[in-house]
Order: sequence, then C-alpha cells, then structure tokens
Amino acid sequence: MLDSLLKPQSVAVLGVSRSAGKVGHEVMVNLIQGGFEGAIYPVNPGAEEILGLRCYPDLASIGEPVDLCLVALPVSKVEAAVKQALAANVGAMVILTAGFKEVGEDGAELEARISDLCRQHRVRLMGPNSVGLINAHHKLNATFAPVMPPPGGISVISQSGALCVAILDWAASQGIGLGTTVSFGNKADLNEVDFLEALAEDDETRVITGYLESIDDGERFLTAAQEAADIKPVVILKVGVTAAGAKAASSHTGSLAGADIAYWAAFKRAGVIRAETFESLFDYAQAFAMQPLPEGRRLAVITNAGGPGIMAADAAEGSGLELMSPDEATQDALRAVLPPEAAVGNPVDVIGDADPDRYMAAFETIQAGDFNDATLLIATPQNMTRPAELAHRLAQAHDGEKPLVAAFLGGDEVEEARRILTSLNIPCYSSPERAVRALRGMVDYAAWRNRPPRVVTRFPVNRRRVDRVIRWHRRMKLSQIGEVEGKEILRAYDFTIPRGRLVESSSQAVEAANQIGYPVVMKIVSPDIIHKSDVGGVRLNLATSDQVRDAFDLLMLRSTRSLPDARVRGVYVEAMGRRGREVILGMTRDPQFGPMLMFGLGGIFVEVMKDVTFHLAPITADEAMQMLKATRSYALLTGVRGESAVDLEAIAGGLQRISQLSTDYPEIAELDLNPFIVGPVGGESYVADARMALRPQEVAK
Amino acid sequence: MLDSLLKPQSVAVLGVSRSAGKVGHEVMVNLIQGGFEGAIYPVNPGAEEILGLRCYPDLASIGEPVDLCLVALPVSKVEAAVKQALAANVGAMVILTAGFKEVGEDGAELEARISDLCRQHRVRLMGPNSVGLINAHHKLNATFAPVMPPPGGISVISQSGALCVAILDWAASQGIGLGTTVSFGNKADLNEVDFLEALAEDDETRVITGYLESIDDGERFLTAAQEAADIKPVVILKVGVTAAGAKAASSHTGSLAGADIAYWAAFKRAGVIRAETFESLFDYAQAFAMQPLPEGRRLAVITNAGGPGIMAADAAEGSGLELMSPDEATQDALRAVLPPEAAVGNPVDVIGDADPDRYMAAFETIQAGDFNDATLLIATPQNMTRPAELAHRLAQAHDGEKPLVAAFLGGDEVEEARRILTSLNIPCYSSPERAVRALRGMVDYAAWRNRPPRVVTRFPVNRRRVDRVIRWHRRMKLSQIGEVEGKEILRAYDFTIPRGRLVESSSQAVEAANQIGYPVVMKIVSPDIIHKSDVGGVRLNLATSDQVRDAFDLLMLRSTRSLPDARVRGVYVEAMGRRGREVILGMTRDPQFGPMLMFGLGGIFVEVMKDVTFHLAPITADEAMQMLKATRSYALLTGVRGESAVDLEAIAGGLQRISQLSTDYPEIAELDLNPFIVGPVGGESYVADARMALRPQEVAK
Repeated sequence: MLDSLLKPQSVAVLGVSRSAGKVGHEVMVNLIQGGFEGAIYPVNPGAEEILGLRCYPDLASIGEPVDLCLVALPVSKVEAAVKQALAANVGAMVILTAGFKEVGEDGAELEARISDLCRQHRVRLMGPNSVGLINAHHKLNATFAPVMPPPGGISVISQSGALCVAILDWAASQGIGLGTTVSFGNKADLNEVDFLEALAEDDETRVITGYLESIDDGERFLTAAQEAADIKPVVILKVGVTAAGAKAASSHTGSLAGADIAYWAAFKRAGVIRAETFESLFDYAQAFAMQPLPEGRRLAVITNAGGPGIMAADAAEGSGLELMSPDEATQDALRAVLPPEAAVGNPVDVIGDADPDRYMAAFETIQAGDFNDATLLIATPQNMTRPAELAHRLAQAHDGEKPLVAAFLGGDEVEEARRILTSLNIPCYSSPERAVRALRGMVDYAAWRNRPPRVVTRFPVNRRRVDRVIRWHRRMKLSQIGEVEGKEILRAYDFTIPRGRLVESSSQAVEAANQIGYPVVMKIVSPDIIHKSDVGGVRLNLATSDQVRDAFDLLMLRSTRSLPDARVRGVYVEAMGRRGREVILGMTRDPQFGPMLMFGLGGIFVEVMKDVTFHLAPITADEAMQMLKATRSYALLTGVRGESAVDLEAIAGGLQRISQLSTDYPEIAELDLNPFIVGPVGGESYVADARMALRPQEVAK
Repeated sequence: MLDSLLKPQSVAVLGVSRSAGKVGHEVMVNLIQGGFEGAIYPVNPGAEEILGLRCYPDLASIGEPVDLCLVALPVSKVEAAVKQALAANVGAMVILTAGFKEVGEDGAELEARISDLCRQHRVRLMGPNSVGLINAHHKLNATFAPVMPPPGGISVISQSGALCVAILDWAASQGIGLGTTVSFGNKADLNEVDFLEALAEDDETRVITGYLESIDDGERFLTAAQEAADIKPVVILKVGVTAAGAKAASSHTGSLAGADIAYWAAFKRAGVIRAETFESLFDYAQAFAMQPLPEGRRLAVITNAGGPGIMAADAAEGSGLELMSPDEATQDALRAVLPPEAAVGNPVDVIGDADPDRYMAAFETIQAGDFNDATLLIATPQNMTRPAELAHRLAQAHDGEKPLVAAFLGGDEVEEARRILTSLNIPCYSSPERAVRALRGMVDYAAWRNRPPRVVTRFPVNRRRVDRVIRWHRRMKLSQIGEVEGKEILRAYDFTIPRGRLVESSSQAVEAANQIGYPVVMKIVSPDIIHKSDVGGVRLNLATSDQVRDAFDLLMLRSTRSLPDARVRGVYVEAMGRRGREVILGMTRDPQFGPMLMFGLGGIFVEVMKDVTFHLAPITADEAMQMLKATRSYALLTGVRGESAVDLEAIAGGLQRISQLSTDYPEIAELDLNPFIVGPVGGESYVADARMALRPQEVAK
C-alpha cells in the first residue's frame, strides 16, 4: 500500500532551487545525501543542472515513469504543477508548500480543488503543508529537515511538520533508529488512517508512533488503529486533551462526557497506547521497538544504589506492576555471587562498588530465575561501574526472552553507555520512573493483545415499535422523546418497564390506576417539561382512587401555573415499582467515535462525585461488567454495610441493550435511563424514568 | 552554622593513599583540582609526600588548627582515627568509609560509639558512608566523585551517596550550577535537619534540593523545613512513598492514613515542594534557582509550532495554570510585528519560519503586556530558528520581572541553545509539559509564601475532666476509651453531646430515660466491644419505658451471647438526637509528624469512596475549612439536590477542637468522632458516637 509514496523507484521534485536554504533545494540535497538508489529528477525550467543532476524543464520531458512527485513551488504555482503531474501520470504526490487551509478561506478552496483533482485521477496526495517523508530502510529522505536519524523500527506519523523536524533531530542525536517518518500536513487527501493501514503492513516498522491534533473519521480510525495494533504496537500522542469546550447536552450522560473521554475510550478499544506527554511517546516507542512483550506484570529490578531502586519500586507499585521476591533458590544463587552487604530481594542491590562482573552475575541469575516477566537494570556511575562495559556486556548477556530495559542515571559518565545500549536495542532511560512507565505500557499492550475474543450479544428486539415511535416524533418535529414513548422504545428492547398508561382526565386516571393496581405513581407528560420533578410534576405512592383523582388535578394545575405555554399531553399513571439501588445508564454520541455508553450510581454519585465510566458501543458482556467495576462506588453494588448485593447482570445486560439500541438507531443522539432501579440478585430490575433525544433531522441517516 | 564543615579554612585527610582510584587518593585529587584555597594536609604515616603535598604521620604533627577532618581509612581503623581527630581538636569531621550501620549489628555499634565520642567533644560529624561534600563557592571539593559541576545556586542534600554522584555528573554535563552538595550518609550525627538549617542561612544557596529516604525527627524537620522555605524554596524527593506497610489501627482514621499521606501533609504545611520523580527534582530546582517567583497563575506561551503549544496548554489546564488571551492592545501590537498567519491568542504562534527577530518582537510585546504572570517560550528547530542566537537574545531581552522558562524540542540542533540558556539563567526543558510542571511548582510555592498568618484558635476547655478520664483508663490498664468516657472528654472540649447516663439495670434505664426524655438511644458499654453495631449492641428511637426495659434486657442478652467473655459495664441511655448530615472527624498520630486530623462525610463516603482529607495539627480555622473543601463530596455540605446547607463552621470548629485536644494530650493515639451529626446553619451539631485509643503507657509522656 502507498508504495509509490513510501517506496518509490523514482522521485521528481518540482520547484528545485539553486539556492541553499530553499525548500526545493534542501529536499534535493537530502534525497542525494540519503543515498536514494532510484532515479532523481529535479524539475526547473530555468536550470540545466542542479547539484550535479540533469535538470528537466517539466515532468513530461523526463520521458520515464515518475513514482513520487514532490511539489516545492510557491503556492500560486501549485495548482498548475498538480495538473502537470497528473497529466504525466505520477504515482503519488507530496505538496510541501504551505499557505493553504491553514491560512484561510482562499487557501482552503485551492486545497479542495487540488485534492479533488487528485481524487479524480486516483493519485494519492500527501500534504499540503508537509515537511515530507523519510523511509530510512529505502534510503529515501524526501524532506527538507536538516538531519536524518539511523534506520530503525520506529515509524512516525505526524500532523505537525515542526514537531516532525524536532523528532528527527532528537532521534538522530540519541541514535534512535526510525523507519518511515511522514509529516502528513493538512490531510487534503492522505491522513492518519491511510498511514496506519500502510505501516501496519510495513515489515520494517516494529512500532507506529503518531502525533495527532485531530482525527478526521473516528470510525475508520478505530478500525485502522485496531487492525494495526493487532499486528504491532501503536503509540499516539493526541493533544488538545483538556480544551473540551462547552457542549450543549440535554442529558446527564452528554454533560458528563468531555471530548477527551471519547478519545480515551476509543484508544482503549483499539488497543492504542496513549502517550501522556511528548517524552513518553518515545519512551514507549523505544521499549516496543527494541524489546519483546512481557508475559505478565512481575518486574525485577537490579541496581547499584538503593535510592533509584526505591524510586523504581514506588513507580512500579503506583502503576500496578509487581516486585515479587525471588524464590529461595534464586536468592541463594544471588548470595553466592554477591557480597554479604548486597540485598537479594527485589530490588536486587548489587551495591555501589559493583563492577560489570558482579552486575552480570546478578543479571544472569535473575534471567535464569522465574519470579519476573521483565527486568529493569539501574546504574549510577560509581568508581567501579564502568558504564560502557556494563552496557556492552548487558546486551550480550540478555537472552531476549523477557524484556529488559535500563535506567542509567547521571550525565557525561553514562552518556556513552546510553548510546551503546540504544544501539544494541536495549532502551535506556534517564530515570527509573520513566523506565517503569515504559514497561507499564508494554504490560498493558500485552494484556490487550491477549484479550478474549469480543462477542457482542445481539438480543431479539421489536424494531417495528421503535420505528413507529421515532417516525411519530419526526412527523411532529419533536427532538425530545419523553418518558412515555422512551419507555415504549425500551420495552421493545426488552427492558422491564412498570405497567402504565397515559391519561387525559382524572376519571381516566382512576380507571387506569384500578387496572394497574395500587399504589401508583403519576407524572406530568409534556414535550416542554424535561425535568418533571423541578416543576412538581411527579406524585409518588398514591394508594387510593381519591388520591389519584387529586393528584391528576394537582399535576395539571401546577404545570400550567409554572409553565403556562407548555403543551401538556396528559398524565402518566404507572405502577409503583419496588425500591432498589438507583443507577444511571446512558448514551451520548461522540461526533468522532459514535455512541458512548455511560454507567454510574444514581443521584449524588453522578451529580456530585462524577463517579461514572464510559465505553464505546457496541459493548460485550465482559466490557459492560468492567464498566461497573471501574467506578469507585462499585462496592456499593456488591453489598457493603449490611446492604445486600444487587443484580449486576441486570445492569450489564441493560448496558448491552442500550448499546444495541444505539447502534441500531443512529437517529438517537443521547439517552438517559435515570434512574434504572436494580433489584437483588434474582429480583426485578426496571426503568423508573427515561429520556432520549433525536439528532437533528438533516443529520440523521 | 557548620562553618568548619561547609566553609573550612583547612582540611586534613586521614587515609590518603598513593594509589589512584582509592577513596583517600581521589579526595585529595579533587581537593587540589577544585582549587581549594585553604591548607590541605594529607595524613599517612607511610609517606613523605603525596600529590606534591607534604604528608604528615598524624594530625598532631601538623601543628596548625584543622577545621575539617576527612576520614578515608578502612573501617577497622576509623575509631582510632576519630579519637586522634578529637584529641587534635578538629572543627568537624566527615567519615567517608562505608561498612557501618548499613551492614549490620557490629557496624551499628561501632557507629554509635563514634558518634557518642563526637557528641561528647561537641564536634559535628557527617557520615559515615558518605561521598563527602562540595561547596563550589568556596572552591571546596571534598568528595571522591569524579566530576564537579560549575558553581551555582542549587544546593543538594542527599541521603544516598550513589545518587549524589549521579547528580553531580548530570549537573556537570548540563552545565547546571550547584552550590553546596552534601552526601550525609548514615546520619550518625548530622542529618537533613542540620543541613536545612545551615543552607537556609547560606547566601549562595538560592534553592535547597533534597533526596531523602527517611526523616529522623518529624517535628524538628517540620520546623527546619518551614524556616528554610520562608527564606528560599526547598524541593524534596522523598522516596519509599507507596510501601506504606500494614499498620495496625483500630480507628477509621488510622486505617485510612497511609504513611505517605503524612509526608504530603507535612511538606504542604512546611511549604516544601515535593518532587514526584527524580527528573522533576531538578526541573523544579532550576526554575527556582534561575527565575523570580510569579505573582499569579497566568501563563503566556510563545511557540513556533502549533503542536507543542497545545501540549503546553493541555499541561497548564491540567495543573491549574491559566492561559488568558492577551488584551486587545497587546493583540494589536502582536499583529503589527507578526505575519498574518501567526496566532495572536495564547499560545502566541509565531509560526515555523520565525527567525530570532520575530520571536523577540513577540516576546517583547508580551513582556510589555499585562495578561500573564509567567512566560514559556517554546522552540522547535526549523530552518529560520537559529536556536543559539534565539537563546542569547532571549536572555538579553528578558527584563527579569516575571519568570521566563524555555522548552527547546529536538536534539543536536538545539543542544547549544539549551546550554546557552542554562548558562544565562533561563531554565530550558526538553518538553512543554516539564516546563509547565516547573512553573506550577513556582506558582504553588509563591502562593505558600503569600499565605495569611496562621492563627490557631485556643478554645477554653476543661482539662481537669480529661485528665481524670485518662488517669482512670491508665489505672485500669485500658487502652481503648469507649463512647461514654470519650464523650466526657469531648464535652470537656465543648463539643455538644446528647444527655446520657450509664445504667446497670433495666429499672435504672427507665429512670434515666424518664429523666432524659423520650425518645432515647441505648447502646451496650464494654471495653471489649468496639464495633457495637456489629453485635447488635445499639437500639434506636425507643419511645416508651416498656421499650427501654425490653431494650436493656435484649442488649445484655445479645452481648453476652455473642461475646461471652466481654466485660460489660452496662448500657448507655442517651437522648435521641435530631437527624442531620453524618460526617466523620478523626485524628491519628503519625510516628514522624504527630497528630494528623481527618475529615470525611460519613458512611459510604469514608468506607467505600475513601473520600477523606488529612491535615497536620495544630490547624487554623481557614485550614479546617480547606479540609472540607478538598473532599469530592463537599458540594453535599453546601446544599445540592434540594437538601439544605449544613453548618460548615460547626465542622471546622470541631476539627479545631480535636486539633487542640490532640496537641494537649499526646497520650491520645487516635480518635474517631463517627458520626458527628451536623445540623443546618444555626442549628445544633453534636457527637453521636466517639472512640479514642491511648498510646501504650511506656511511650506516653
């Protein structure tokens, strides 16, 4: 995939300048110095030769097929150049020129025209506003960045060209090998999804790292990211995390779901490791690129100084890794090779005067033991340490079965050792905490890789009833679905709903109550009254026909008094359900990633403690149960303080049914089941109140 | 203070070897190469001259006063050397030799003998097991570490010698200036408190950084740290944070207070900035050493790349800093100096092709504006950036009124610029997130410096009643103070306690209830029954004498049935208080830092949600109110969902009274007021149940 772009046999550059410093000139220099083995065609009508290569007046005069065409012309000349390239039948195109969508309306229009042209000709376009691309394994440096790192297993996709340059510079200075690096710019055509797909299949890429500011198509991203993550690790730094922006949401669920929550949920679903900071992006990437995945979360730490060992232990405990003590045999073996002052627990402290021999004796003993899934070797530069020798011997001794990472603390004294380790595929960090964080990322990814197959249950439901309710609301131009019809929809999805009837007079109310059986609940029904309780629109526990009659009149009176213009459809008379634990089940539709399910305990747990969890739909039974367990208040559901446990399966089942409803009906923008009353195990659980909102008509499919 | 040690006029080294690599030899090399201007006396009976200096057979033969005596002899010869040094009347001593307390019993005994000797002679001792010390401003390098950083404002105190060496190496390689660096080793005599005191008064130290694994005397540490922090920033990395270890606690408060919570509380009280990781220790230290404190939390960001700007904004929002938009005038001024594609909000994006001129035009405009309290300048290495020139000009342009920090992203291309910035006192970080974190540390410290005076209210109390209760429990060898006497103590500290009486028969119970007035509560009273409810030992809302009589019999029956050996003192009959909001007030005594107060909402909020806050006693009214506000459930106290607000002052007052009780009575190890019932504002709040535990007799003062 994208071979013309990423593995071209020939490259033409439109807009090659004779002046050093100009983009077109620098790209040409990089192509040549990078050692590209295919043909390089500089195109400039005003020059015969540039940098020792024959220069062509235009693409047509080259007379050979051109795989990749780079455009480094001023913005005013780009459209004509694109037409020329398409006429010349190039394989793929990169527009390095800036000044398009990012500067305003005119640029955006020009960009759209160009990308339309390329699409018509089925030629893929990267950019504009791109720094270019590097495929180190293909000896292709088609960027105007000043430095090029060595070839390696880390591929980089970046929405920011400037950051891309900084990354290349950093990687080169650290000796970190990169594979394919692309700066995809304005994404007029090719975007993150295309590169995820291409790099997933690229054998030279061991880990895909990405810097993203936006995601164009959530659904395609999810699919591509997960397919890539199933093959190799995908680490992404997604910025703009806290600027969630005010979101107009009428549901609890919507108001609690910040934009960033959807990204977390999406990345988790897709198995993408999310980097928290710029530094962690490559902390993770190095571990993934250089080491095998751990089989569990048990970490062994070897150190020549107590302090950093404690730092590692603190960080491990804080991130859920375990420092198990070595078994007796391993401890004995360690004692045999270490001085009496050494510590043979975990961390293993080989103490300050350890030379590489002693370090290696300890490391090999640990490597032969079976109390860890990964090893962290820490070194501080002491008199006997000889860091560079240690680095060499460590790489030599490592059998590669379990992941090994290093943390060498200090400055110039350990600098060479760090480079040696990096070059020998042992990631070396400047602090124990960063090393542990990288290992934690590996453990999480390994767990995702070993996840059970996702089986989404499909429940038999009655879609015709739902269709009818939605059609009716569309016809009436109502975007809110209130309790009565909301419950009709939920009943069609096999939720338990108390018996109830919409009535329009007090005598109808009494008749309904007699039919349903006492006690009953009565609630005002109006498309204009969303928060019924706030206007006194709910009456509970009505036990006699007199009470029902009074309640009807009172509800009608109150609603007309507090909201004179409200359209009142009547009063809903409903069987009074049993008491139980109140929870809230909800769904809101993220613009990028679609339906997101919410769970939380009702009332203050949602409103005050914000103790809710989210998960992308569709959801499996296991994932639904995980949502419950991820709340802080989970223990309240399993029975504490003398209360009995509630029917967890009923909640998880409810979430799965909402999941199905949300994927079946994209028209439903958000919904709250609030409260959903959960009974004891084996008892009854039911929907006490529910609301839904439809998407605006024009958007709904 | 400690001048003989930190600013000696003469240094003698016992155990100077001719062999390079030996501790005594390396120290001598460092002393000479460091350029120490005082006298240096190598002592070795077997040599005439070492490293060009006359060698002495012993201290006595020097014939001149010796301020600082370093001991680098084998462990077996150290005691004799110490005696010799004391006889020669040295000013201070450092034992570099290892092999003492850290290796076992014998070493510990030797160490204790030596420190006793020094104390008897009033000679201060650092070590043993120390790497030595450096005072760069005094040109003193009395360590055996291989490198020495340039002189600067950051002083370092380290409990780990190995880490100290790594820090010196790192600082030297980064060009970061250090002032006084001490590796205080086993703390046989001098410890963290002594160095905090000494460095607080050292004019050359701008910031004190510390690496600590343990704190010897919490109270002295608190005092010294706070006194130091009142003069200059103190940043400490305290490791061993999560290994809290199981703590036997009978109170809720005790079981919720991990050891690390006490450190957080203590550092917060003392104004100490706590470094979360090894890297953040010096991230903070550099900002403090090089820049003035900000006056507020408003941050301006300048960048030549959008991505890192967003990273900075994300980090700022996540840590409570504000990115305000520049005022109109500043925006106009920015537009006048920047190209049209630039962004003049916050971050200010000078875009990728910015040269130092443009960067400086933007920086100077921002510096003249008034929408920020601190500035972060971000640079990625692009074609026009010229990082080194930018660094020079930035330092030149900065007027020093508001703090300025930089984040230069990349590798070799920005390396020189980073060094230039560091050398010109502008801290430069490798990521936007680290820069923002450092600024956040400055903002927090500035806020602490500007804190209102702490006035701890002293309430008039009746200590005689408390003395009596405690004496009685001591006499009875009871360590638990149950509800009846616990409430007596609290009543003496002016808590509202419902009327109640301890009774021993059903007729006494009825008599008591008649006197108190119905309804009443009845509870079993036994030193052996701590959790009364668990054994059915509580009866609520008893409205008639018959009910009281029945309840008495039932309580006695139940308690003897479930705990046949329990010593039952009778039944407590108490007026039934009004309903209100249940909260828990508690105190547990940290072994290091003394009484720690706890607050949380009652029931599930404590037990399930663990939503509690801690604060060291003594506490002010304002701090008590902060404890309330720091809980997630705080909104429940101020009235949400139709519930009325509770009397916050009553809770804060209760915490202050417990604070006073805990400081007045060190005998009280822990206490729970659980629940404390808070009424509405102006209403009644009272203690519904209370328990206390006394410290073991031998420990109590």
